[in-house]
Amino acid sequence: MQKLAVIKEGKAKRFYETDEDGVVWVEYLDQATALNGKRKDHIEGKGSLNNQIDTILFENLMDNGIKTHFIKQVSSNEQLVKTMKMIPLEVVIRNAASGSFQRKFQIDYLKPLNPPVVETFYKSDALDDPFINESQILALEIVTDEELNFITDYALKVNQVLSTRYAQAGLKLVDFKLEFGKTNDGEIVLADEISPDNCRLVDQDTLASFDKDVFRKDTGDLVDVYSEVLRRLVESKEAANV
Amino acid sequence: MQKLAVIKEGKAKRFYETDEDGVVWVEYLDQATALNGKRKDHIEGKGSLNNQIDTILFENLMDNGIKTHFIKQVSSNEQLVKTMKMIPLEVVIRNAASGSFQRKFQIDYLKPLNPPVVETFYKSDALDDPFINESQILALEIVTDEELNFITDYALKVNQVLSTRYAQAGLKLVDFKLEFGKTNDGEIVLADEISPDNCRLVDQDTLASFDKDVFRKDTGDLVDVYSEVLRRLVESKEAANV
Ligand SMILES: Nc1ncnc2c1ncn2[C@@H]1O[C@H](COP(=O)(O)OP(=O)(O)O)[C@@H](O)[C@H]1O
Ligand SMILES: Nc1ncnc2c1ncn2[C@@H]1O[C@H](COP(=O)(O)OP(=O)(O)O)[C@@H](O)[C@H]1O
Ligand SMILES: [Mg+2]
Ligand SMILES: [Mg+2]
Repeated sequence: MQKLAVIKEGKAKRFYETDEDGVVWVEYLDQATALNGKRKDHIEGKGSLNNQIDTILFENLMDNGIKTHFIKQVSSNEQLVKTMKMIPLEVVIRNAASGSFQRKFQIDYLKPLNPPVVETFYKSDALDDPFINESQILALEIVTDEELNFITDYALKVNQVLSTRYAQAGLKLVDFKLEFGKTNDGEIVLADEISPDNCRLVDQDTLASFDKDVFRKDTGDLVDVYSEVLRRLVESKEAANV
Repeated sequence: MQKLAVIKEGKAKRFYETDEDGVVWVEYLDQATALNGKRKDHIEGKGSLNNQIDTILFENLMDNGIKTHFIKQVSSNEQLVKTMKMIPLEVVIRNAASGSFQRKFQIDYLKPLNPPVVETFYKSDALDDPFINESQILALEIVTDEELNFITDYALKVNQVLSTRYAQAGLKLVDFKLEFGKTNDGEIVLADEISPDNCRLVDQDTLASFDKDVFRKDTGDLVDVYSEVLRRLVESKEAANV
């Protein structure tokens, strides 16, 4: 497999063509952004941590019968994935109140949300990723009604598997963001990344934050925290795979 | 029927107790607000116009088999309605793009939305009436799943009747806001008001605005415009009632 020209670069990852049809080479960048990209820092080692965490979680999802874009890890900060036509929606699942949800509705921090709350955001830099409801998604023809139901159910299934896996590592999955895409055959599968960049994790006992909030709020060292997430996931791996 | 003590006063209406159980006396105020109440003007004659327009529209809805809180008009600016336990949701129906929807998604003004878009806002002055989706409504236990579906279908039925009635008056119903409540028996019915304060209307031919946008944007005289809406509704009344 050969890594060829850069196709695109986002806030956290760079995508390269390969010599194999339908396969892209993803490089995780040593970069952290906040405020929808307005703040951007170089953080040595972050790309490698996210790539390794993402790999463990995507492999676990696939072991649990969930289809994804993931093919395999190729270096500490690189992986191969299927080329996807991305669906411009961010699907957020919340198991407990935090962040924008907590602020918007003035709810107690970490109040359990059971069943989980599902939110969708329209992924558009020009529009600033607005919160969008089902009816608006259909009016803008982003996806069909059937596709939206499929994606929502899918996200809730991912939530179950991920919550279990994180619990094995002593972490509570508070909320997270997913992105979906269509394969060349038109099948919708989970794409993008799952890492502490895109979720909120707290220690099951101490409730300490183990995610990008330490960067957003400047309350700790991102590399220390992500390293601890990786360490716990690796240590609990045998248990998880039994 | 006797008008007794004031129960409450909102931005557009004052509610009084009556000597009859389950009946409240509503006075429409000569007051217009914008920016969620931050701007407030006295506008002589507005209360009476809204009360008369509301009466025609609620009577038309009830003629079409739609249950509402409306009992009867008692003076030019007063009416009797059933006392409701209000559901703190604003249900917005959009037949064409305008206002916040048009801005948020950068869509052409008056682009037709078919099927209509349904939006819900959580009626809470403290939270500034935030946009809320179905999943969040259920998490906050504002209504149940069944109630929410019932309300949404109800609002779409109201839309059909109102759109037809306004079309008879040469007006296109672009969008509008509804509120629902529970009667003493726990039945959900349409409440609050339907007037140019809570909807966008444009002339079918010229597309001139006939609603509160003339006040919000300071592009015309509110009393002139509302008077024209009333005149057209009255003139088309016989046709509508055939
Ligand atoms: N398998 C895939 N194929 C193509 N694009 C993908 C795939 N997975 C994720 N993407 C997209 O790659 C882009 C770059 O990722 P990222 O750096 O996280 O971007 P962003 O700045 O949008 O968060 C994003 O638009 C993301 O949706
Ligand atoms: N039938 C009813 N019974 C009780 N309250 C009602 C009824 N219809 C409407 N209301 C409520 O009356 C209040 C006053 O109305 P309004 O002046 O329009 O208030 P607002 O400032 O909230 O728009 C609102 O909270 C509205 O929800
Ligand atoms: Mg991203
Ligand atoms: Mg009102």
